[in-house]
Amino acid sequence: MSHPLFEKHRATLDAALAAISTRAYWSPFNEMPSPKVYGESAADDGKRAFESHLGKRFEMDQPGQTGWHGGEHSPYGIALEVQYPVCSPQALIDAGQKAMESWRDIGADGRTGVCMEMLTRLNQHSFELAHAVMMSTGQGWMMAFQAGGPHAQDRGLESVAYAWREQSFIPETAHWEKPQGKNPPLVMKKHFQIVGRGVGVVIGCGTFPTWNTYPGLFAALATGNAVIVKPHSNAILPAAISVRLLRSVLKESGLDPNLVSLCVAAERDTTRALVTHAAVRSIDFTGGNAFGQWLLDHCRQAQVYAELAGVNNIVIDSTDAYKAMMRNLAFTLSLYSGQMCTTSQAIFVPAGGIQTDEGPKSFDEVCTDLAKAIEGFLSKPEVAHAVLGAMQSMDTVKRVEEANNGAYGRVVLKSNSLQNPEFPKADVRTPVLIACDASEESAYMEERFGPISFVVKTANTAASIALSERVTSTHGALTAGVYSTDAKVIDAMTAATWRSKVALSINLTGGVFVNQSAAFSDFHGTGGNPAANASYADTAFVANRFRVVQRRYHA
Amino acid sequence: MSHPLFEKHRATLDAALAAISTRAYWSPFNEMPSPKVYGESAADDGKRAFESHLGKRFEMDQPGQTGWHGGEHSPYGIALEVQYPVCSPQALIDAGQKAMESWRDIGADGRTGVCMEMLTRLNQHSFELAHAVMMSTGQGWMMAFQAGGPHAQDRGLESVAYAWREQSFIPETAHWEKPQGKNPPLVMKKHFQIVGRGVGVVIGCGTFPTWNTYPGLFAALATGNAVIVKPHSNAILPAAISVRLLRSVLKESGLDPNLVSLCVAAERDTTRALVTHAAVRSIDFTGGNAFGQWLLDHCRQAQVYAELAGVNNIVIDSTDAYKAMMRNLAFTLSLYSGQMCTTSQAIFVPAGGIQTDEGPKSFDEVCTDLAKAIEGFLSKPEVAHAVLGAMQSMDTVKRVEEANNGAYGRVVLKSNSLQNPEFPKADVRTPVLIACDASEESAYMEERFGPISFVVKTANTAASIALSERVTSTHGALTAGVYSTDAKVIDAMTAATWRSKVALSINLTGGVFVNQSAAFSDFHGTGGNPAANASYADTAFVANRFRVVQRRYHA
Repeated sequence: MSHPLFEKHRATLDAALAAISTRAYWSPFNEMPSPKVYGESAADDGKRAFESHLGKRFEMDQPGQTGWHGGEHSPYGIALEVQYPVCSPQALIDAGQKAMESWRDIGADGRTGVCMEMLTRLNQHSFELAHAVMMSTGQGWMMAFQAGGPHAQDRGLESVAYAWREQSFIPETAHWEKPQGKNPPLVMKKHFQIVGRGVGVVIGCGTFPTWNTYPGLFAALATGNAVIVKPHSNAILPAAISVRLLRSVLKESGLDPNLVSLCVAAERDTTRALVTHAAVRSIDFTGGNAFGQWLLDHCRQAQVYAELAGVNNIVIDSTDAYKAMMRNLAFTLSLYSGQMCTTSQAIFVPAGGIQTDEGPKSFDEVCTDLAKAIEGFLSKPEVAHAVLGAMQSMDTVKRVEEANNGAYGRVVLKSNSLQNPEFPKADVRTPVLIACDASEESAYMEERFGPISFVVKTANTAASIALSERVTSTHGALTAGVYSTDAKVIDAMTAATWRSKVALSINLTGGVFVNQSAAFSDFHGTGGNPAANASYADTAFVANRFRVVQRRYHA
Repeated sequence: MSHPLFEKHRATLDAALAAISTRAYWSPFNEMPSPKVYGESAADDGKRAFESHLGKRFEMDQPGQTGWHGGEHSPYGIALEVQYPVCSPQALIDAGQKAMESWRDIGADGRTGVCMEMLTRLNQHSFELAHAVMMSTGQGWMMAFQAGGPHAQDRGLESVAYAWREQSFIPETAHWEKPQGKNPPLVMKKHFQIVGRGVGVVIGCGTFPTWNTYPGLFAALATGNAVIVKPHSNAILPAAISVRLLRSVLKESGLDPNLVSLCVAAERDTTRALVTHAAVRSIDFTGGNAFGQWLLDHCRQAQVYAELAGVNNIVIDSTDAYKAMMRNLAFTLSLYSGQMCTTSQAIFVPAGGIQTDEGPKSFDEVCTDLAKAIEGFLSKPEVAHAVLGAMQSMDTVKRVEEANNGAYGRVVLKSNSLQNPEFPKADVRTPVLIACDASEESAYMEERFGPISFVVKTANTAASIALSERVTSTHGALTAGVYSTDAKVIDAMTAATWRSKVALSINLTGGVFVNQSAAFSDFHGTGGNPAANASYADTAFVANRFRVVQRRYHA
């Protein structure tokens, strides 16, 4: 008899398994923040739940607590002032290891059922989580709801589905009977026990504290591991709400809640001690190259799944929908003020210009028209604020100002500060667009995180494609795009992406954008270039998080 | 229409897929060197084929050849004197990268079919390979045939089956249609291209030059990668025969033979340059800790699958089949003079002795009876030579002599030199058995590769189990065993192996031995303790050797 929560969620799991095998559209968690879906009172309840955390201690009932720590600064300028428990990493590790035993013993079906119950619980709290994500990251409301809620939950479930597929492939027992000619056969009974590798640490980022955390969190959990979530110092609340919900599901299921815990640390040394601990066997990280590389270099006891910096790029060769292309690019560059790991940074355009349905366009016209498209798109303040959100970090603001001042090249479109009437203290910036020559590699061939993009002048489209391949292979990219009416160009760009290993979007002119990826269908990152060594989600993301220990005896 | 070689081998592939899902007994390659199976002339043909290589240049037709190198010394003392092409690693890498393009383009079914044809070809050459393995490693004939031929081919096919399962799960295309309420849906066409990570290097060992090479070789090949085989300097011939056969299958299939090549290097620096090359993206290694750790530390550009040293161990608590237990252990310790990565090194016995069907046996009696069992088993010279083979390396001979001289503790059974009438120059050694106390950790808690085993006196069985767990967790083990008539002891040992992550054999008294693992059923290594970071074979062994590059466009 399998676990009751497995039975409860079995139909959804089956649909998820079908989705990862076809990678057609599917989503169990509704992305519309609608009362029809989430209930008439859900929006108000969620807002109140979020507000109830502010200015208070966030009780977690975790072991080894030594104090409280907070200090999150909202990009929208509201006062958060939440205090979180500070716990000894050793206590969290010890408790996690202990909790792994009963977690192992309930088997893959039990773990899968409990993980799906956790995701369902998170989904019910989507409004509360959305406010927490919005206020800690600076995302606009709709993005905070979708990416912070249902889309993040989708990515979590995607991990659970892959984990189930691999674990359910391991037989519990085998009857092994080897013929011995005329003699009696050799007969053995074998048992195959799935065991987690050990405690996992998931290190969140400041911009997508749930979307980039749930894949590793649920991949590690579903495969039998305890998980310690170490949130970004400025985006603790969404992680804390999530972890507390997961702990409550564990407790209700008669399991040890210390399987999942939150590690909030006032000092960087605490994190370093945590991630290099011998008991920590997996680390999921999203963030910059400096700490990411440190993790890869120093955490040799663990499997490190890292999403790092990259230089996302687009090759523009020609188009039969010039205005739609510009609209599509304007949205991509504006969304969340370019503070996405998937935002395009370098746009390669031939020096001789491009052919379009509106006739030939020179390089300078492409620059100017893209600038106009962005300005036009952001001309209505309500659209601008909804799309741009607010600046997540002062480092990004500083980069934008440097770009505005010409530090990276000729400014085609200056970034403006906007005043958000609803949040007067929010720092809102529109994109800055730079034009430069392909030879000015030091300007564009390094991640300039935020709303800073480059239109890069190349000799011709063949040079653009070669440059895209080189940038991606050497500096990494999560996304690439191409615009062309010429099948040969698309084929050449496709072949380049097979070598540089980056997902390619071709001629996007409608309601799909290069910087967006859909769970169960789009692989986020290939894991094959410097921007990430793993993908959301594929088999490799889950298969090495557990091991199989067999035993055998004469039957 | 799928690839003709895929169609040819499809039934065997389906059977392999069924086998890895049940892990029941299955083998497509017959382990009996019988004329009924392999043909009336196979034995003679194989022997002649082997002999035809001796004293000659082994032509490979590889790119970038700069010279010839040989120098293998046969443990049986016969003259080998084969010269192999020395090729520039850069030339082999360049040619491998080029060959990967058409290899990618024939798709997973084409690669799977060609790999299975390669394994079939290897199987047809099992006698030739067996002689090459025997004469380069010192294995006895039957082991050389079985482990060097069909069992190695089984392990290769096991990798291919896992690789096919994962690759065939990736859809080639998807139709993605996302509803937009009352508006028309968003519709995208997506393509998912499987690409290999890059050139793989497989580093062979001196004792099992095919068995430990084929899993990584075929895992890397089947998932779209070129492979450069770097054999052990004293076991080149089995690898060279294998690689040349694979190259001929590629050529016959209209593919670029440089997909697989042999790297023979006169200098160690050549190997180091090869494995740290940026284009090398996976390394499979079997061997000692020194070079293994060097690879893990320095080849950061590559995935490293490493099988290293370990301290395999057995806990003896009690038995209802004392004589059969002793016979079983005597065979395990004698087989190939203990020169297996799976041979038991430490046998934990309580100071107070054990309960048996022949009454209680003191610690000293257990030592003496094990010594007698080994002596008895090896008393007939024809059995002794068939089982022991010859000493593969002078380092191992030196260790045996040190053990004989008491360097590691009290000698219970001295190793003898035997004279092999068929091979007068062969260096043949029987096992040496040492008795020591659990506190003498420096003696037994380090791999003493070869026919050197320790009976270790512990306080009691609980202490034995705790010691087994600690030895395995800290020094690694590929195999563990337990003998007990008490279900509680077996349960405690089982739980210990779940924590230390080692395969457990329970009460082996018949024709199955702790040091033997059967492809398609036994996982060789768990990948979860220091003896190996990967397992033959599981999904994790193949899933991260390829990446998926998607492209999408409006449909």
